[in-house]
Amino acid sequence: MKPLILITNDDGYSAKGIAELSKIAAEFGDVVVMAPDLNASGKSHSLTTDRPLRVTPISHNEGVSVFACSGTPVDCVKLACEHFCCRKADLVLSGINHGSNASVNVLYSGTMGAVIEASNNGYPAIGFSILDHDPDADFSLCIPYIRQIISTVIEKGLPEKVSLNVNFPQASAEGYQGLKICRESKALWSDSFERRQDPHGADYYWLTGNFICDDKAPDTDQYALENGYVSVVPTTTDFTAHAALSTLTKQFEQ
Amino acid sequence: MKPLILITNDDGYSAKGIAELSKIAAEFGDVVVMAPDLNASGKSHSLTTDRPLRVTPISHNEGVSVFACSGTPVDCVKLACEHFCCRKADLVLSGINHGSNASVNVLYSGTMGAVIEASNNGYPAIGFSILDHDPDADFSLCIPYIRQIISTVIEKGLPEKVSLNVNFPQASAEGYQGLKICRESKALWSDSFERRQDPHGADYYWLTGNFICDDKAPDTDQYALENGYVSVVPTTTDFTAHAALSTLTKQFEQ
Repeated sequence: MKPLILITNDDGYSAKGIAELSKIAAEFGDVVVMAPDLNASGKSHSLTTDRPLRVTPISHNEGVSVFACSGTPVDCVKLACEHFCCRKADLVLSGINHGSNASVNVLYSGTMGAVIEASNNGYPAIGFSILDHDPDADFSLCIPYIRQIISTVIEKGLPEKVSLNVNFPQASAEGYQGLKICRESKALWSDSFERRQDPHGADYYWLTGNFICDDKAPDTDQYALENGYVSVVPTTTDFTAHAALSTLTKQFEQ
Repeated sequence: MKPLILITNDDGYSAKGIAELSKIAAEFGDVVVMAPDLNASGKSHSLTTDRPLRVTPISHNEGVSVFACSGTPVDCVKLACEHFCCRKADLVLSGINHGSNASVNVLYSGTMGAVIEASNNGYPAIGFSILDHDPDADFSLCIPYIRQIISTVIEKGLPEKVSLNVNFPQASAEGYQGLKICRESKALWSDSFERRQDPHGADYYWLTGNFICDDKAPDTDQYALENGYVSVVPTTTDFTAHAALSTLTKQFEQ
């Protein structure tokens, strides 16, 4: 039986990135797309608990079934696996996101929230993103890398509860320099809110911010991306700071 | 100068848990509370990007200033640090959450999203939760532990980009057995959506689910909680699966 590949994203079911990813995935198996009906960027690992979800069938062509869902990317993975996949998915993909999910962006990313959810539920899972917010971004250079990564993961699997966070530099005439397995750069977003006044004199605050990253050692994703490489960060579902366990045990238990 | 302590949660500014936490924090310093104006459970690390935020001053008594914010817990931390703290906060607290954030619940938790955000921005940060969803939960047994933990963190700090995820068993006549530094139990939520039909015959889906946890070794938070201990998990902002780097480098780069 052909592999079944479930695809979601956080830009919404009608984004160019998810259409590109679906086309490539269809070379490998049957494809179910369930993605948010609206943009869900910045939704991280959030769930919808205060209202029920609705699902709208969008299309069914050449082995690719597309559904729009009123929930978050994590909701999409959970709901699709349970109610919209005719058999257990062999692989879960998310993206191609329009914008970076490298470094600390993984904290906020709905694209990667979906991937981490799938991984925690036992599915091999991969998130793809490009450092280009253009709704008509050029994904052509990504295609051979996506094929290679999907093919390797279908063949060899991934370690338990480890997923992949793949980021592509913006397309350029030089092409990409290759692929690098990396760790996340440490970074943060600062100066995050712009205060404005409404016509009645009351304040309101728009999220904005600057990406601050001083951690660009050669083993980081930011280094890879700034040097023309495709970055691949193995990503865990376990948030325990294992290296801190013994120090804190001394401080708190004794 | 007294320490400045910023407090948020995901149950909303009017929850009993955040009032209890504010009272304890006020013993240690000046307190600014900025918390969601509505319940924001399950919001994880999500940001509000599609609309501006509003802030409502609620009260100002005995060194405790309370604001309600229309955003997520992560929005609350970012906005309060930038616009509502008169000086740099010395400590960021979140909770006391009504419900468990142990094990894999940390993935979905707005309470812990706020803590991880603060930690990534350089603040010592602690999330507190109790395994009791009752809006009138009994927090009395938590108080001496919260005092001890706040006091230790103010005195000794925390390792860089490491925060604490503290969970309390439900109150019982036996009291708590002590405090354990733990790792997260591996677990997942399964059977997540209940399908219903609206009066017009269309399907909708309510999130529900069962917590499945087979990882209850003595070093885990689930073990600690089920044996009457307060669990404290050091929590990282780095999602890199470091242990998988070398295997994946062999698979993908060679």
